[in-house]
Amino acid sequence: MTVIIVIFEYLSGKLKYRVKMKNLTYLFILFVFLGCEYHEKSPEKPSNNLDNLQKSIGKFGIVIHGGAGTILKEDMSDSLEAAYKAKLKEAISAGYEILKSGGSSLDAVTHTINIMEDSPLFNAGKGAVFTHDGSNELDASIMDGATLNAGAVAGIKHIKNPINLALDVMQKSEHVMLYGAGAEEFAQTLGYKMMDTSYFYTQKRYESLQKVLRNEKEKNGKKVSFEDPFIKNSKFGTVGCAALDKHGNLAAGTSTGGMTNKRWSRIGDAPIIGAGTYAKNATCAVSSTGWGEYFIRAVVAYDISALMEYKGMTLQEAASEVIQKKVPALGGDGGIVAIDKDGNVAMEFNTAGMYRATMNSEGELVIKIYKDE
Amino acid sequence: MTVIIVIFEYLSGKLKYRVKMKNLTYLFILFVFLGCEYHEKSPEKPSNNLDNLQKSIGKFGIVIHGGAGTILKEDMSDSLEAAYKAKLKEAISAGYEILKSGGSSLDAVTHTINIMEDSPLFNAGKGAVFTHDGSNELDASIMDGATLNAGAVAGIKHIKNPINLALDVMQKSEHVMLYGAGAEEFAQTLGYKMMDTSYFYTQKRYESLQKVLRNEKEKNGKKVSFEDPFIKNSKFGTVGCAALDKHGNLAAGTSTGGMTNKRWSRIGDAPIIGAGTYAKNATCAVSSTGWGEYFIRAVVAYDISALMEYKGMTLQEAASEVIQKKVPALGGDGGIVAIDKDGNVAMEFNTAGMYRATMNSEGELVIKIYKDE
Repeated sequence: MTVIIVIFEYLSGKLKYRVKMKNLTYLFILFVFLGCEYHEKSPEKPSNNLDNLQKSIGKFGIVIHGGAGTILKEDMSDSLEAAYKAKLKEAISAGYEILKSGGSSLDAVTHTINIMEDSPLFNAGKGAVFTHDGSNELDASIMDGATLNAGAVAGIKHIKNPINLALDVMQKSEHVMLYGAGAEEFAQTLGYKMMDTSYFYTQKRYESLQKVLRNEKEKNGKKVSFEDPFIKNSKFGTVGCAALDKHGNLAAGTSTGGMTNKRWSRIGDAPIIGAGTYAKNATCAVSSTGWGEYFIRAVVAYDISALMEYKGMTLQEAASEVIQKKVPALGGDGGIVAIDKDGNVAMEFNTAGMYRATMNSEGELVIKIYKDE
Repeated sequence: MTVIIVIFEYLSGKLKYRVKMKNLTYLFILFVFLGCEYHEKSPEKPSNNLDNLQKSIGKFGIVIHGGAGTILKEDMSDSLEAAYKAKLKEAISAGYEILKSGGSSLDAVTHTINIMEDSPLFNAGKGAVFTHDGSNELDASIMDGATLNAGAVAGIKHIKNPINLALDVMQKSEHVMLYGAGAEEFAQTLGYKMMDTSYFYTQKRYESLQKVLRNEKEKNGKKVSFEDPFIKNSKFGTVGCAALDKHGNLAAGTSTGGMTNKRWSRIGDAPIIGAGTYAKNATCAVSSTGWGEYFIRAVVAYDISALMEYKGMTLQEAASEVIQKKVPALGGDGGIVAIDKDGNVAMEFNTAGMYRATMNSEGELVIKIYKDE
């Protein structure tokens, strides 16, 4: 574009003169110069970490989700909507206060997610959905953008706050990912309390499982349950958080009960680093929510970072590319929340709604549920 | 560049004439046209699958690894070296024949890996290493570059060929990743034979566990076992394969017993789509081997694809960037084998050796073990 504009300027300014050799030489030098400038500004150049750090000092922000899906205003009572918004506000405010007082993004992410894990409103911790055999299997992951260290747990059944165990896997083991009883054995070496499985029982989630099972039976076991929006909505859900602290460090975390009626110890995207969770100080921190299988195949969280780092996209452009184009092209749906190294936030989804909230350095709070809001 | 060359041509051809309005208009139109052409050829644009398909028809290739690590010639007997090379040749030849006769890359990958899984020489299937409690827990994953579909299993104990189960998860379930007993329950619905765990017992791997345990005890449980090259070498290992078939379809697969002395149901990179395995027809197919925790954190397999797609790197440049720079920067080591849409192969590692082999359309076979070979 720059080249074309300059030709225009050249033409309009010079047409009254005869073009001589000298003028053409200037034109040529100008083009070479512009060519170099164009190349330098090319999005392929990796950004400078130190510059970013300098810019970000003092600036911070946080963004959360409580799951994406077929969330329609007509299906929601005023009191339920108010309950969701209040809990989102409580959760994000906790993280905001940590960041404001100079705490780390890892701390903010963990504490914010804890509040959502402890609420029966969201499919994580206390509100986890039921598996096919009527149990609850929890997954979580967390990543530190400063060190690219990461921790994840999957298929755990007795830990109140799976995100805390993911953090401990990252910080206190030599591993990244632990599963089920093994992960809980590790938790016990750290003094974690083993919860009775009844802690995870909620009437609403149990009824969802029964409805899905009835639907499956009526369809002779065929996987057609997604034709019913209620079923689809109640099958998925996740909570997640991405934060930038005053020290320029990014972190992201995700926690979930997985998929209603899941069987065969299915693992979704939430505990997969690169799919459900990713953070890198040079780019962004991302937490995903949606149909996990498609999010694994599209390597959603890391792809957003890669599009920023390698193609020079903004966070919003990268999030839109992945969530509005790449995931739907595979047939999947869901969303992400993300924050970049400069505090810009993206809350992108291709479903009817996503429980979401964000707060910036100035304490400005945004809480939304539906698409057009 | 094109723009500059054309200016040169224009200058040399037209200098003897006075430049009139008409000529300048032509020049302008030419620049607009060339600008568009330049933009179209930019490496940022994702490549056209149909074009690739056309180019690749008839061309095929396959590449395998049997693990990377501290593999030194002075520690290896001639007979053991010959045994490794013979098994690598047998495995890759099986895949080559499938590809040559027009079979799919998925088939070639699966059958090639089966031969290595069935050999006690490699840490996968029959030769799997032992966990801390003296059992064997197997992981595998596979990905189809044509559809971006994927399948993975982790922590399984009774399946002879885990890569086959990963393929069935991809093709016969609505999931991508299944774990342990749940994955085996799914396998039983498909008629898989449940192997007695004694099938996976090999004296050599059991002795490795004992040595690692003794070493750990001597160091009072501290994780310092990597100071002994034998220990380091015997702790890791994987088998993997990447292939391009005559139809232009890429596929990759990885299978492993994980890490000697692993505990708490640790999951490494082998069953993680994006870390251990990735395939996309527009770019490449990759299988990783190495210190899994670092490969997960660096999203190794997908990062190679992203560097090709978004930065226009060649396969070799991308593989080198990730294995020689990014993984070591985190403190990890290991390697990858990969093949791109045009049949170019990369076998990149930052360890003393990697069991590896490749065959191209012409049937040219390369088998190597050590770094400088």
